[in-house]
Amino acid sequence: MKAEIINIGDELLIGQVVNTNASWMAEQLTLTGFPVIRVTVISDTRDQILDALKEAEQRSDIVLISGGIGPTNDDITKQTLCEYFNTSLVFDEDAYRDIELFFALRGMKVTPLNRQQAELPAACLSLPNKLGTARGMWFEKRDPSGRKVVFVSMPGVPFEMKELMVKEVIPRLKNHFNPPFLYHKTLLTQGIGESFLAEQIARWEENLPENIRLAYLPQPGLVRLRLSGSGDNETTVRRQVTTAAEELQSLIPDYLFGQDDDTLEAIIGRLLTQKGQTLATAESCTGGYIAHLITSVPGSSNYFKGSIVAYANDIKENLLFVSPETILKKGAVSEETVLEMAVAVQTQLATDYAIATTGIAGPDGGTALKPVGTVWIGIATPGEVFARQYLFGDNRERNIRKTALQALNLLRKSLL
Amino acid sequence: MKAEIINIGDELLIGQVVNTNASWMAEQLTLTGFPVIRVTVISDTRDQILDALKEAEQRSDIVLISGGIGPTNDDITKQTLCEYFNTSLVFDEDAYRDIELFFALRGMKVTPLNRQQAELPAACLSLPNKLGTARGMWFEKRDPSGRKVVFVSMPGVPFEMKELMVKEVIPRLKNHFNPPFLYHKTLLTQGIGESFLAEQIARWEENLPENIRLAYLPQPGLVRLRLSGSGDNETTVRRQVTTAAEELQSLIPDYLFGQDDDTLEAIIGRLLTQKGQTLATAESCTGGYIAHLITSVPGSSNYFKGSIVAYANDIKENLLFVSPETILKKGAVSEETVLEMAVAVQTQLATDYAIATTGIAGPDGGTALKPVGTVWIGIATPGEVFARQYLFGDNRERNIRKTALQALNLLRKSLL
Repeated sequence: MKAEIINIGDELLIGQVVNTNASWMAEQLTLTGFPVIRVTVISDTRDQILDALKEAEQRSDIVLISGGIGPTNDDITKQTLCEYFNTSLVFDEDAYRDIELFFALRGMKVTPLNRQQAELPAACLSLPNKLGTARGMWFEKRDPSGRKVVFVSMPGVPFEMKELMVKEVIPRLKNHFNPPFLYHKTLLTQGIGESFLAEQIARWEENLPENIRLAYLPQPGLVRLRLSGSGDNETTVRRQVTTAAEELQSLIPDYLFGQDDDTLEAIIGRLLTQKGQTLATAESCTGGYIAHLITSVPGSSNYFKGSIVAYANDIKENLLFVSPETILKKGAVSEETVLEMAVAVQTQLATDYAIATTGIAGPDGGTALKPVGTVWIGIATPGEVFARQYLFGDNRERNIRKTALQALNLLRKSLL
Repeated sequence: MKAEIINIGDELLIGQVVNTNASWMAEQLTLTGFPVIRVTVISDTRDQILDALKEAEQRSDIVLISGGIGPTNDDITKQTLCEYFNTSLVFDEDAYRDIELFFALRGMKVTPLNRQQAELPAACLSLPNKLGTARGMWFEKRDPSGRKVVFVSMPGVPFEMKELMVKEVIPRLKNHFNPPFLYHKTLLTQGIGESFLAEQIARWEENLPENIRLAYLPQPGLVRLRLSGSGDNETTVRRQVTTAAEELQSLIPDYLFGQDDDTLEAIIGRLLTQKGQTLATAESCTGGYIAHLITSVPGSSNYFKGSIVAYANDIKENLLFVSPETILKKGAVSEETVLEMAVAVQTQLATDYAIATTGIAGPDGGTALKPVGTVWIGIATPGEVFARQYLFGDNRERNIRKTALQALNLLRKSLL
C-alpha cells in the first residue's frame, strides 16, 4: 500500500511557511504501515489540483490532501474535487449543525461564508472536525485498471488536520486497508552522539528479531531511538518490542532518560512532585535557559522556586557569594566556582535541589586551556554537591542547549 | 519564468526531518522574481528521479534539486542525472583538488568514497562548494518544443545548499534569465495583531504605487511586513521602497522595531553597547525566558549582568524585597509588585536598566478578576520606573513569548 501527500497553499510556495504538515502526516502514515512515496506542494488553482490528483492516482493507493478548504478559499478546491470525482455540492444538514454549534460555543452567529462550508461533495463521506468549520472529505475512486484509491481532503490548519488524522483518517485507513500490525516505542537518550551510541549497541542491534527495526532520530542535544515491530500477532509484537526496549535500557542506563513524547523537564517535574521537593538554578553560560525549560512545564510553580542568572562575575560574587579568590585563582569557569554557585542558590532559595552552570558558550571568550565549549555543571542535592566538566562544540546556541539538557539529566539521575 | 523544487531524501518521506530546504529555496526564488509553482519530495531511486525530472521539465523553466548527492548515496542520483541528460561521469581535476583541500584543512586524507565525488557528469557546469565535498551541478536542456530549461542539483545539507544558492545559483539564474529588478524590505512589528495592523495602515496600503506590494508575514508574537518593489530602473525601485518604508515607520512608530533579519534582543544589545549601559531582569511568569533571549546574542555579557527568576512568592520577598504586604493586598500579579521587582533587581545587580515580569501564564492560576493571560511588565530606567498591564491569551507558551517580546520592546523604546 503506497501513500502520498498533496499540500495545497501559496504560503508554502513562497516560503512563508515551513511545511510541517507534510512531515507530520508522513510520520503518521509511516508509523501506521503505509510508506509515503511522494509529497507534492501546489497552489490552489483548478489545473494544478487536477494534475496533482491525476498523477497521484496513478502511483498510490492513499492520497492525503491538506489545505485549500478554509472559509475564504474553499471554492476552488471543493469545486475541483467535485469535478475530479464527478459529483456536485449538496447542503449537508449534519455539517451545518456542527458549524452552528461551533459558532454558538464562541457566542457567535454563522456567517454566509461559513454557511457555504456545509456544502459538500455528494460523493464524499464527510468527516467531522470539532476544532474548525471545514470538514474532512473521504473519496474512493477506481483507477482505469479497477484498483481502488482512497483520497482524503483536510483543512491545512495544523491542529485541525492533526485532530482529523488521529480521530478519523488513520483509524478508517487501518480499517479499509488492514495493514500488518505495527508497534513502536521510542527511547530518548541524552549525552551521547549518534555514532558512539551505534557502537555501544551494535551487537544488540545485530541480534534483533527480523521483524523489529531500529531507527536513529537525532535532534539537537538528543538522540531518539525508535523500535518498530511488525507482524500479525499483536501480543507477540508488543512483547518483542517491550523486551527489546528493556534490553536497550540495561545497555545504556546512563544515557536513556525516557520514552516517546516525554521531555527531561517534564520527567524532573514529576520526580520532584512525587517527592514533594523543590528546585532552583544558578545559571551563567545557560543564561536562564534551564529555568525557561523547567517553567515551560505547566504546574512547575509547585516545585521550581526560581533562579539566579549570574552572567557577570560581580553577580556571582554578590548574589551567589562565590569568593573573589576562587574566581581569581580558579576562574569563573571552574569546578570550585560551579560548586559554590550550586550550594549558594540551594541555600538562598531554600530548595532541596539545585543546578549550577558556568562555561564558555562562544563565539568569544575561549582560551588555550579553556576553549569555547568548556562547561562545568554542578548539582546540589539534600545530601551532597558534585560537579562535572564537559567540552561541547563551537556553536553558541547548541552549547547552551547541550549544557541545559546535560544538567537536567544529571539532576534526573540524582533524583532517582 | 516558472520555477520548481525537487527534494530527494527518505528522511523527508518518513517524516523524520521537516523540509526546511524547500521553504528556504522557495523564498529565495520568489524574492529573486521566479515564482515557484511546485515542490516535490521523492526517494532517491532511479525511477522516481527520472519521473520527477520529466514532469518538472514540462511545467517549469528552472528546476532546483536538493539531496541525494552525499558521499554515501550519490551513485544513484548522479547516474540518473547522467541518464536523463544523456551524458556520462568524468573525473573533474578541479573538483578533486577542492576535495583534497577540504580534507587537508581538517588534517585528513581523501577516502575512496570522497574521491568518487570528483566524478561529475560531463554535460554539467560544476559549481564549487566550499563547505562540503559534493559540488553543485548546473544542466541546461531543451524540451521538445525547443524551450531551454535549467536544472541545478545541490547537496541536501542545509548550510551547503544555502551557500551554493547564495554564491552560485541565484547569481547565475539572474544572469541567465534576467528577471525584472526586485527590491525587498521587511519591517518588523511587535504588540499588534495582523488584522488591527491591517486596519491602521489600510489607507496607506491602498495608495502604494502599483509596482510595490505588501505581504503580511505573522510569526509567534510578531508580524513582519514585507515591501517588494519591481521595475526596470533599480534606483527608482529602491527609492520607492525606501519611501514606502519611511511612511510606514511614521504610521506605526509604537509597533515597528526593526528591519529584515533583526531581533529585539539584538537591537537592545546594540543600544546598550552604544550607551555603555547595563541591564538585568526580574522574571516571574517568563521564568528566565527574557534572560535566555538576551543571552542568546553573542557578546551579551558586555551589557547583561544577570537575572533573578522569582517564581515562588517567597523568592519575590526574600531576593527581590517585594513587601509581604504588597503581595497580600495587591497580589503577586499587580502593578505594585512588578514595580518593586524592577527597582529591586536594578538596585541589587547595580544596572542602568531593568525589566520585571509577573503574570498568569496558564493553564491554571486564573481568577475572574485576573484571568489566565494577565501580565504586568515593569521597566526601570536610570530616571524612572513604570509598569504596563496586558491581557494575552490562554496558551502558556505563547503567553510567555508575547510577554518577553513586549517587555523587550518597552525597554527598546525607553532606550531611544
